[in-house]
Amino acid sequence: MRHSRIASLFLLAASLLLAADGDWQSEGVVSVAHSPYAKLHAVPIHAVKMGDGFWSARRATNVEKSIPTLLAELEQHGVVANFLRLEGKKDVPRRGPLYTDSDLYKWMEAVAFVLQSGDQPKLRAEFDRLTGIILAAQEPSGYLNTYWTEERTPKRFTEMYRSHELYCIGHLIQAAIAYYRATGDRKLLDGGIRFANYMVENFGPQKRPALTGHPEFEMALVELYRTTGDRRYLDFAGYLLSGVERERLHLTADQITYLFSGKPFTSRTEFEGHAVRAMYASSGATDYYMETGDPAYLKTLETLWRDLVNGKMYITGGVGSREAGEAFGEAYELPNAQAYGESCAAIGNMMWNWRMLLALGESRFADVMERALYNGINSGMSLSGTLYCYRNPLESSGEKIRNEWYDTTCCPPNLERILASLPGYLYSTGPKGVYVNLFHTSTLDWHLENGTGIRIAQQTEYPWKGAVDLTVDPAHAAEFSLFVRIPAWSDGTTVGVKVPAPFSTRQDTPKAGEYFEIHRRWKPGDKMHIEFEMKPRLVRANPLVREDAGRVALECGPLVYCLEQPDQPGFNLFDAALLDDGTGFVSAFQPDLLGGIMVLKHRGSVVDRPFSSEPLYRPFREQFERPGTVVALTFIPYYAWANREPSRMEVWVPYTTVGTE
Amino acid sequence: MRHSRIASLFLLAASLLLAADGDWQSEGVVSVAHSPYAKLHAVPIHAVKMGDGFWSARRATNVEKSIPTLLAELEQHGVVANFLRLEGKKDVPRRGPLYTDSDLYKWMEAVAFVLQSGDQPKLRAEFDRLTGIILAAQEPSGYLNTYWTEERTPKRFTEMYRSHELYCIGHLIQAAIAYYRATGDRKLLDGGIRFANYMVENFGPQKRPALTGHPEFEMALVELYRTTGDRRYLDFAGYLLSGVERERLHLTADQITYLFSGKPFTSRTEFEGHAVRAMYASSGATDYYMETGDPAYLKTLETLWRDLVNGKMYITGGVGSREAGEAFGEAYELPNAQAYGESCAAIGNMMWNWRMLLALGESRFADVMERALYNGINSGMSLSGTLYCYRNPLESSGEKIRNEWYDTTCCPPNLERILASLPGYLYSTGPKGVYVNLFHTSTLDWHLENGTGIRIAQQTEYPWKGAVDLTVDPAHAAEFSLFVRIPAWSDGTTVGVKVPAPFSTRQDTPKAGEYFEIHRRWKPGDKMHIEFEMKPRLVRANPLVREDAGRVALECGPLVYCLEQPDQPGFNLFDAALLDDGTGFVSAFQPDLLGGIMVLKHRGSVVDRPFSSEPLYRPFREQFERPGTVVALTFIPYYAWANREPSRMEVWVPYTTVGTE
Repeated sequence: MRHSRIASLFLLAASLLLAADGDWQSEGVVSVAHSPYAKLHAVPIHAVKMGDGFWSARRATNVEKSIPTLLAELEQHGVVANFLRLEGKKDVPRRGPLYTDSDLYKWMEAVAFVLQSGDQPKLRAEFDRLTGIILAAQEPSGYLNTYWTEERTPKRFTEMYRSHELYCIGHLIQAAIAYYRATGDRKLLDGGIRFANYMVENFGPQKRPALTGHPEFEMALVELYRTTGDRRYLDFAGYLLSGVERERLHLTADQITYLFSGKPFTSRTEFEGHAVRAMYASSGATDYYMETGDPAYLKTLETLWRDLVNGKMYITGGVGSREAGEAFGEAYELPNAQAYGESCAAIGNMMWNWRMLLALGESRFADVMERALYNGINSGMSLSGTLYCYRNPLESSGEKIRNEWYDTTCCPPNLERILASLPGYLYSTGPKGVYVNLFHTSTLDWHLENGTGIRIAQQTEYPWKGAVDLTVDPAHAAEFSLFVRIPAWSDGTTVGVKVPAPFSTRQDTPKAGEYFEIHRRWKPGDKMHIEFEMKPRLVRANPLVREDAGRVALECGPLVYCLEQPDQPGFNLFDAALLDDGTGFVSAFQPDLLGGIMVLKHRGSVVDRPFSSEPLYRPFREQFERPGTVVALTFIPYYAWANREPSRMEVWVPYTTVGTE
Repeated sequence: MRHSRIASLFLLAASLLLAADGDWQSEGVVSVAHSPYAKLHAVPIHAVKMGDGFWSARRATNVEKSIPTLLAELEQHGVVANFLRLEGKKDVPRRGPLYTDSDLYKWMEAVAFVLQSGDQPKLRAEFDRLTGIILAAQEPSGYLNTYWTEERTPKRFTEMYRSHELYCIGHLIQAAIAYYRATGDRKLLDGGIRFANYMVENFGPQKRPALTGHPEFEMALVELYRTTGDRRYLDFAGYLLSGVERERLHLTADQITYLFSGKPFTSRTEFEGHAVRAMYASSGATDYYMETGDPAYLKTLETLWRDLVNGKMYITGGVGSREAGEAFGEAYELPNAQAYGESCAAIGNMMWNWRMLLALGESRFADVMERALYNGINSGMSLSGTLYCYRNPLESSGEKIRNEWYDTTCCPPNLERILASLPGYLYSTGPKGVYVNLFHTSTLDWHLENGTGIRIAQQTEYPWKGAVDLTVDPAHAAEFSLFVRIPAWSDGTTVGVKVPAPFSTRQDTPKAGEYFEIHRRWKPGDKMHIEFEMKPRLVRANPLVREDAGRVALECGPLVYCLEQPDQPGFNLFDAALLDDGTGFVSAFQPDLLGGIMVLKHRGSVVDRPFSSEPLYRPFREQFERPGTVVALTFIPYYAWANREPSRMEVWVPYTTVGTE
C-alpha cells in the first residue's frame, strides 16, 4: 500500500518533469542531448526527410507491406489474443513462447518510428487500440506479462535467467518512448513507468534480487531516465549491469556466459554466449556510460569492441557464429554456411555502435554501423518486405532461408524498427557543428547546438555512386564545422567546397576512417562535393579464419557482394574460382534486377570435373584444382540474395591464377 | 493374463532352443554364423588372444582402471540407486537423464566382453550383483525402466520419440547376450527376453504403434533372434525399420530427420540428424539385411555408405559435424575446431562397418573400421583410462576436452566395450578360408568353416612398423585361402609366403584396398611375411571442405597425426605452416612419450608477426602470409592428444612453399 502511494507520487513528479521539459519533439532515436558523456547528439527522426535513393523503396515497403502483414501474423498467432484473454475477452489458451509480448512491443516501436516521420492516422489508431488492449492486462501493481499469469503467477521473478519478464517490459518502454516522441501521448509510457517503478521499489541490493536474463531492460531504463529525469531508473540499470546477484539467484557459470549478465559488466573481456544478449547488454552499458562517465565501463566497452572487430565480426557486420546457443564463437570462428548471424544480432551491433558513436564521436563506430546496416541487417528482410531471415549465413547450398513467420519472431519487427528509424542515424550534432554519418539523399532541418537554425540538403546515388553533394543552409552566415564521415574503405576520397559567388573550390583528400572536419564561416547556399572511392575491392581474411583460406570477398562502397547461382548459368558456383589474372571488374547497374542493383562481373575459372565427383581425401601430390574453363562470374550485393528461388550462394569465393580460354 | 501365459510358453520354447543350440561359446561380437546373407563370419572373442602391442596397454588399463572407476562413477551418480529405489532399498529421488539405465547396461556389456576373454571372478560377481538389482526392478509384464515409473508410469510408450525405453532395453539385451556368450548364464538374458516379448506381443502394425526413437533396439532384436531363434524379434526389428508409424505417433518431419527413424529406412538416401542414431540405425538395418537379404536394404546401405565416406566422414573416422542436434552436417561440412565427432558416433561407425564387412566381405569396410578405431575412437579415452572425450574435434585452442564424468555418459562405457571386444574384430572366416582384418600380435585358435582346426599366430609392431609375420597352423595340411586385408593406404605392400622345408618364397605386390587371397595347400608351420608401406603420407581434402583449404593432414599407417602445442616450443602452432620444400619426414619412436609413440618431424615455417596481431580483414593485395622462420614441426598421433595440459592442437596444418632459414 505504502509502496503504491510512493509510486503514485513519483509518477506525478515524473509527469511534471516531462511536462516541464516539453521536449518530446526534439529527441532522437536515443536522447543524449543532456547526457554528460555523449560527444555527439542525435537529431530527431522528423528533422530528417529521406528522399529517393537506396533506402526509399525498402522504407516504403516497410510501411506499406511489412508492418501491416506482420501485425496480421502477430494477431493470427495469438500474440494479441494473449492480452485479450487476460481481460476475459478471449477464451483461448495462451499461445507462443514466453516472450511473445516483446514481439508486439517491438512492432509498436516500429510504428512509433514511422509516426515520428509524419502522422499516419491508421497506424496511430492501431497503436492506440493495442495500447488499450495491453494496458487492460496490466495489474494494479504495474506487473504486465501474458505468460507469467494464472498458474504461473507464483513463479514470477523466480526464474529470471529465462523469464524474459524484464526483456518484455523493456521493449514496451522503448515502444512507449518512441510513441511519446512521435505524438506526445504518454498513455503507454505511463504503463511502462508503473512497471519500472514496481521494479525499482521492490528489487535491488537490499531488496529482492534481479537479473535481466535477456539484457535489453538496461537500455530501456536509461532511456526512461532520459525521458523522465527519474534517476532511479538509471541507478537500477547500473544495478543490473553490476551483476552482483550471482549467489542470490544461484546462477551457474554457463548461465552467466550465455546470458551475458549475472556478473559485473565491467569484468567482461570478450564476447561470448548469446550474441543478441551480448549486443543489447553492451548497448545498455554504453547508455549507462554516457550518463555516468564511469571509466571502467568505457574501458570494458573499448576492449569488447576490439574483441568484436578483430576476431568475431563477419564482413557483413553480422555477429554470432554458432547455432548452438545462438552464440559467439571463439575468436576467428567465422564459418560461412553455418554462420548463425541472427538478424537481431546485426541490429544489436548497429544499436551498440550507434551508442558508441554518440559516446566517443569516432568514425570507426559509424563504419561498423554502416557495414551492418547495408549488409547483415539489410539481408534480413526480403525485397518484398514480407519474408525475413532469422539466420544470415555467408554461404548457402540452397536451403530456404526466408520465412514470413518464426515462432520466435524477434527479427521481423526488429528489422522494421530499424528501417523506420533510419532517418535518425544520418546526422548528428556536436558542440562544434554537424556530423554527416551516413549518405543518402535527404534534408536535415534542425539547428546547431548554439541554436542557429540549419538546413542541409544531401544529394547522392550512394551506394551505387560515390558522389555526394551537400548544400549547407544556415539560418544566417555562421562559423561552425561540418564533419563528413570518410568511410574506412574509401581511400582517395576528395572533398571540395564550392562557395556560390565569387565561386571558389578547395580540394582536399581527407583520411579514410575519420570524420573530415570543414571548419569555416558557412553561408546559406554553400555547397560541398564529395567523391568516395567506389572501385570494387577484393578483401581477404586473417588466416586464422579457417573457412576463408584461399578465398576473397568482394566489396564495393559499403556493400559486400556475393555470387548467387541464378547469375551463373551453366556451372555450379562451388566449382568456380575468381581468376586473379590482372583483369578488373566490369560494373553495370541493372534497374530491373532485384530492385535495381549494381552488378559486378569478373573473370573466373570453373573446374572441368565437379569437385563433388572427386573423393573426399586424396594424396597431397594429387591436386584437386586444375586449370579450369574461363567464365564470367557475376556478383550481386549480398543483401539481395535469396530473393529468387533458393539456390547456392557464397560471399567468400576461392581465387586461382590459372584458367584456360 | 493370457498374454503373460503365452509369454511364458514362448520363453520356454526359446530356452529349449538355446539349450539345443548349446552354441554360446562359439559366437562372436555378432553371431552371423547362420545368417544367410553374411559373406563373412565372426570368430568368438575367446578364440583370439591379443599379445603385446599397440592395444595391450590400453586394454589392460581398460580392465584395471576404466571399468572399475566408471562403475564407481555410475554408483556415485545414482545410476545403480535408480534401480534400488524401485525395490524400496533406497529412499532417494531418481537421478540423471532419462537414459541412465543404458549407461549401466553398456558398462555391463563391456564387462561381459572382458569375461569372454577369460574369467575374472570379481568382475563376474559385480555383473551378477547388478543383474540381481536390475531384475528386481523388472515388472511382471517384463517392463523395465527406472525413469518411466511412479508418476510417469501412465506415460509409458506415449513419448517414444524421446523416451529411450527401447534404447535402454536394447542395451540390456546386448549386455545379456554378451554375458551369455561369456558364461552361458542366461539370467539377465531371460529378463531381456521378457521385455522383448512384451514388445512383440503388444506392439506392431495391428497393435500399438512403436518407434525406437533412439535406434539401437533393432540391433539387439536381431541379435536376440540369432541367439534364440525366435523369429518374432527379427520381424519386430523389420517393423521398426519399416518406419510406418509416422501418423499414429504424430511424428514431425524434424523428428524423423533427427531420430533417423520414423520413416522407412529404405527410403533414406543420405545421413542427416543425430549421428549416433543414424549409425545405430544403419547397424541394425545391416543386421536385418544379413538375415533377410532384402535388396532394398542393401541398396540403401550402399547409398548411405557412399554418402558417408564421400562427404561426411572426418579423416579420423569420426562422424557428426554439428553440436546442435549432435548431428550430421551437409556434405563437406566438416569443421575442425567445431567438429562434434562424438566418441559414440565413431564407435557406431565402426559397428556399422563391421556389419557391412560381414555382410559383403569387402575390405573398404574394414578400412573405415580401422580408421575409426585407431583415431576417432581411440582419442575418446585418455591414456590413463579414466578421462573421456565426448567430442573429438580435429583442432583445439586448448579447452579442456577430457572429463571423468558426463551427465550423459554414453561414451565412456561405449569406449570400454569396444576395447574389451577388440579381439573379436581381428579375424573372421568365410567359406573359402580365414580373413585377417586387423593387425596386432595375436593368436587365433579356431577352425575353418569345414571344421578343420586352425591356429594363426600373428607377430607385428603395427602400426609403428609395417612388418606382419603370420604362422599358419592348420590341424593338418589343407587347401584353403588366407585373405589378408591390404589397407587402402598401403600402396606397394609386399606379401611373401615361406614354406618351412624345402624353403621357398613367393613374392607378390597385392592391390591396396582389397583382401589379398593366398589360396594354397597350407601345412602346419607355413609362414607369411607382409610389409605394409609405412611412409608418412600427406593428404589433402576436397576443396568443398572449406576448413581444410590450403591445409594438409598427415597419416602414417592407420594413424592420423596432429600438431599439439607442447611439442612445438617457442611458437604458436597456429602461426606455423608445413614447409613444402621437398624435404621429407624424420621419424623417431619415443618410448617415454605419451605411452610410447612414433613421432614425425618435418620442416615448417612460422610467421614472424602472429596472425592474431593482424587485422581481421585486409585488402587482397596485402598478404597476411610472408616467408617465415624455418622451424621443426613435431607431429604426434591424433589419438594421443589432450593427455598433457589442455593446449592447442590441429590435424589439418597449413602448408607453404616459402621459409627463411
